[in-house]
Order: sequence, then C-alpha cells, then structure tokens
Amino acid sequence: MRWRSLFWEAGALHLLDQTQLPASPTVLRLREWTEVVEAIHSLRVRGAPALGAAGAYALALAARRFLQDPATFWVNLRQAAAVIRAARPTAVNLSWATDRALQAAVGVQDPEEASQRVLEEAHRIAEEDERTCRLLAEVGARELRDGERVLTLCNTGALATVGIGTALGILRAAWEAGKRLHVYACETRPLLQGARLTAWELSQLGIPFHLVVDAAAGWLMAQGLVDRVLVGADRVAANGDVANKIGTYTLAVLARRHEVPFWVACPLSTVDLQTPSGSAIRVEERGPEEVTHVAGVRVAPEGTPALNYAFDVTPAELVDALVTEAGVVRPPFGPALRALKEGTRV
Amino acid sequence: MRWRSLFWEAGALHLLDQTQLPASPTVLRLREWTEVVEAIHSLRVRGAPALGAAGAYALALAARRFLQDPATFWVNLRQAAAVIRAARPTAVNLSWATDRALQAAVGVQDPEEASQRVLEEAHRIAEEDERTCRLLAEVGARELRDGERVLTLCNTGALATVGIGTALGILRAAWEAGKRLHVYACETRPLLQGARLTAWELSQLGIPFHLVVDAAAGWLMAQGLVDRVLVGADRVAANGDVANKIGTYTLAVLARRHEVPFWVACPLSTVDLQTPSGSAIRVEERGPEEVTHVAGVRVAPEGTPALNYAFDVTPAELVDALVTEAGVVRPPFGPALRALKEGTRV
Repeated sequence: MRWRSLFWEAGALHLLDQTQLPASPTVLRLREWTEVVEAIHSLRVRGAPALGAAGAYALALAARRFLQDPATFWVNLRQAAAVIRAARPTAVNLSWATDRALQAAVGVQDPEEASQRVLEEAHRIAEEDERTCRLLAEVGARELRDGERVLTLCNTGALATVGIGTALGILRAAWEAGKRLHVYACETRPLLQGARLTAWELSQLGIPFHLVVDAAAGWLMAQGLVDRVLVGADRVAANGDVANKIGTYTLAVLARRHEVPFWVACPLSTVDLQTPSGSAIRVEERGPEEVTHVAGVRVAPEGTPALNYAFDVTPAELVDALVTEAGVVRPPFGPALRALKEGTRV
Repeated sequence: MRWRSLFWEAGALHLLDQTQLPASPTVLRLREWTEVVEAIHSLRVRGAPALGAAGAYALALAARRFLQDPATFWVNLRQAAAVIRAARPTAVNLSWATDRALQAAVGVQDPEEASQRVLEEAHRIAEEDERTCRLLAEVGARELRDGERVLTLCNTGALATVGIGTALGILRAAWEAGKRLHVYACETRPLLQGARLTAWELSQLGIPFHLVVDAAAGWLMAQGLVDRVLVGADRVAANGDVANKIGTYTLAVLARRHEVPFWVACPLSTVDLQTPSGSAIRVEERGPEEVTHVAGVRVAPEGTPALNYAFDVTPAELVDALVTEAGVVRPPFGPALRALKEGTRV
C-alpha cells in the first residue's frame, strides 16, 4: 500500500480524495484552508483521527494566508479555527486537534513564528496518530483469536487515520502476525464507506472478507457466523458511551442478543472527558440527497423526504471493551478512561 | 392510483416492470410462460401475493403453449410448474398458487379444457388476493392508533400484491379512515424496494413519511420516534416464525429491546403449515452484484466478494401479532394459525 490518506508536502496538504474511491484514486493538493474545510464537509477526508490532522493542517494553511495582514492575524486565525471546528460536529478529533494547533501559537508575538508553530503542531498531531494507530493495533491484535470472524462497519483503516487505522488497523496487525481472519464488512449506507473504502483496503491487505448490506448483520449473527463486532468511534464520552457511524447502535443491540463481544477501537484522542455522556453529543444530520441518491444516481422518486442521521450513540452498557493505545479498557469505563487520559500526554 | 401490479388482458399477462420504477413506469405484455419466469427471477414482479398470481398466470400461458402437442401436454405442464415454482424459493405463495392452478386441471381429459381451467384458477387467485388485501387492511387499520409513527421495510403495497397490499394496505386503509400517520420507510438494500417502490406508493397516497437507510432503524427507536414496526412476510411457518426481507430480524430484535410492537401482515396464503418452523425455510441467496452495485453502478472495487441473503427468519417469540384477513393472531401462533387455515378456504 503506497498511498496515504493525507500528507504535507511543498507547502500544501495532500489528500487522497475519498469520494473518488475506489473508481478513481485522486490526490488533491490543497493550498488554501477553505479548500480543506470544503474537503472535510464533503467527506473527501473522513474518519475521526484523519479529520484531526486535516483540521490542524487547515489551520496552518489559514495562518500562512493571514500573514499578509499582521494587524488582523489573530482575529482571523481564531475565526478560522471556529469555522474548521464546525465543519463536522460529531467527531471530537476535529475540534480537539484544531484547538491544539491554535494553542501552540497562543502567546507567540510574531505572526510569522506563530504560523510556524501551528504547522509544527499539525505535524506533531499527524506523527502521533501514526504511533498511536500502531500501538492500538498491537494492543487489539493480541486479543483476537486465530480464525475469528469479525463484523465491522464503515471504514476505520488507513483511510480514516494518518496511520494504519483503528479497528481495521487491529485486523491488519493480527493478520500480519499470522492470525487467520474472516471479515464481514457492512457496506455502510448512505455513503458506502464499507463497500468503497473498507473493501478496497481489505483487498489490498489480502484479508479474506465478504461485503454485506447493513441489514444482513442480524441474520449473520443468528446463523452463528460472527465471533466479534469491532468498530471505530467518532467520539467516546467520559462514561464510555460511543458516537459512531449510523448503524453502530443496531450492531451493538444485535451483538448483545447473540452474546457476541462488541468492541470499539478508539485512540485516546477520540475520548472526550468534556462530554459526560452520549446524550450531550450532537449527532450530525446530513442532507437528504445522500439517502435519495446512491453514487450520484437518484433512486427514490422526486420530492421524497429523507432523514439522514450520520451517526448514532451506543450506550456504554452495550460495549464490552474499548481498545486504546494504552490498553484494553473494560467496564466500568469512566474511571479507567479518566486515568488513561490524565496519565497520557494527548 | 390508476396502475396495477399485474392484470390479464387479451391473452397476455401485463406486468408493471418494478425494476424500472420509479424512473420509467413500463407495462410489460408477456405472452410466453418463460417470459414470466424471467420476470419473477429478475424481480420485475415481486412480493409474495403478486408472485402467487404471476405464477398461476405463467402456468396458464404454459398450458396454452403446450396445446400444440396434446401427447406431451401433461408432461410439459408438470415440468413447467416445477420450473415456475423454483424461480424463487422463499415466498410460499409462488409454489402454492402454481400448484393450485395445476390441480385445477388435474383429471380433466381434454388439454384444451384443462388449459382453460388453469387460466380460470389464475383469475380466481388474483381476485381472491384483491378481496384478501382489503379484508386484511381493514383488520389491521382498526388496530392502529391516531397519530402513530410506523416503521416499515421493503414494499408491501399494491405493487407487492394484486390488491392494495398487506402492511402498506393497512396503512392505506387507516389513512383513508382518517387516522393520522407518519411512516419511516427503510430503503431496503440491496434492491431498494423501500426507496423505489414504497416511497412511490406513499407519495401517491399522500401519507407523510421519511425515507431512511436501513441502519437508522435502531437510532430512530432509541430516540422514541417509532410506535410500531409493521412488515410483510414471504412465508410464515406453522409455529409463527416469519421469513421476510433481509433486515426484518434486525428490526424485530430492536423492537423488542425498545418495547415497540412488532407486527407482521400476512394473508393466510402466506402461512405454510407444511413448514413446521423457520429452520425449515430455504433462504434465497442472490448474486453478489446486487451488493457490489447500486442502481447499475459499481460501488465496490472489482473482485469484491459479497454475500447476499435476500431474506432472514424472525423467530415467533419476537413477533407480537400476525395480521391476517381473518383477524389478528397473537401468541401462541401455532394453534390459531392451524384453526384459521383449516377453517378458511384458501
């Protein structure tokens, strides 16, 4: 695999445009922060950890642009940070990383130097994500048994992060350690990240899998075909409630009925101690055309009203384990998450 | 609504081609039984009750064709019945109606007259379905409360039957009786019968609704937005286990967790006393391209393996009520279903 979801080169953020996958892999070269905001909003880049790095790089591009007028530099930079944070509301990494890049410059008098500090912090966030993914994958891979059949949702691989991924990173590490696996990849309507992105990554990794429609998850479990559900997270609340792609909650309910372990891979950067529980998480609603159209083709009649929640919230009581780079966390999640977050430099 | 899913006219079976809906409503005029078999296999006609009538008319077309050689008439007719029955394995109505049309001719010496008997029986099956739908809709509509928010899957309306439909027929009758309703229509991947067909019917009926992706059902229930799940059935076993569109079982599990009533509309022709329980039902697996492609557009990478169960089986213990034309049946289903089937001329 020679591609990367995003990287910085020659003063520009390079993004593999995920809306064009798998048909037409295209690398975008973005030199303006507003282009990055558009890319975030349009899901050209997605996945909580990748959104974090993209947000920090967007702020670095904004800082460079605002150098032209030192008098308004700080006002503009803070406004840009607010716009970037708001591009998508549910994944906590976007606001966390954008804030962190902004804070790296606060107190620096010279805009030129401040701008440099933002870029350095963005690099640091990207590098940390690579290390974090690797650690998290090793932690999780140790827990998988040889021959496991794992059901997953959405895309949680290298496309969703700067590194090798979260849930899919675990599968990759287990596979590369010689464990046999079979993956059931839910296609993940409406935007088909499972069919387009996870199938693409699994094919390249050589991990055996089947693509299935989201509604098939229950029947697979009823037939005893699933040993574990393993998904990612867009935000984990302080009590362990998990916001993730729409359909995650349904998988958790099914897993509990079938006594299938329900595991969530989440770097500590995705854990938000400021969010006490899932009820405080804002679930993004996106446009109805994502439901009424598929791959650009209208499937529902003209004028069809559609409701398009992009995420849902799974209560901690349905989660059997959270896999972080610092270890596997089991219920009760609250105290353990607090200890890990406070003991770890994030 | 001036269209009908199927009707007989001028010696041909006319079918509204459901693969072309909603974009291009097209009526097919089929004069050969093999064309009807192709239409059944390709889902140009679908829905358990509509499949029953289509199968009987296919046999009538076959009988007419085989008149050319009276010596082989009966051998050919029995072979055609076997082919028609096998076109789709899960919905019981197809084999039930085909057998019934065949039995109507058995014992008749003259092929010409036998052929006429098959056609008359097909007409009878179609007419009975119209009456049955109307009765079933009235039985169910009485149970719905004013203002209910009902979640449904696939298409169970006039397109799925000869009459006004089963689950959607109930909603229509309740709406026409003045009850306010809101419907959540699951899009029903892979073939999007919810997005293409149910949205089309609900729009024409003027019933307020939202289209949602299948994976959103859990989150809708978690938010308290669903008062009842109401689906159809392709085959109901003697013990009340329900084979229906893939995803039905998932909805039943979610409904139970949220204490939302899970109701199944099934004409008695869909109840199969010869099938003791769901484990005896053959669940059709269809081609992977229905999953890897959407509306003719490839969405997954070339070579992606996909698993495509068209149906699943919901155990009777998750079903709160079966709505038949003879009344609402509640658990335990076995004795009541047997009594209704044996007391009713089907």
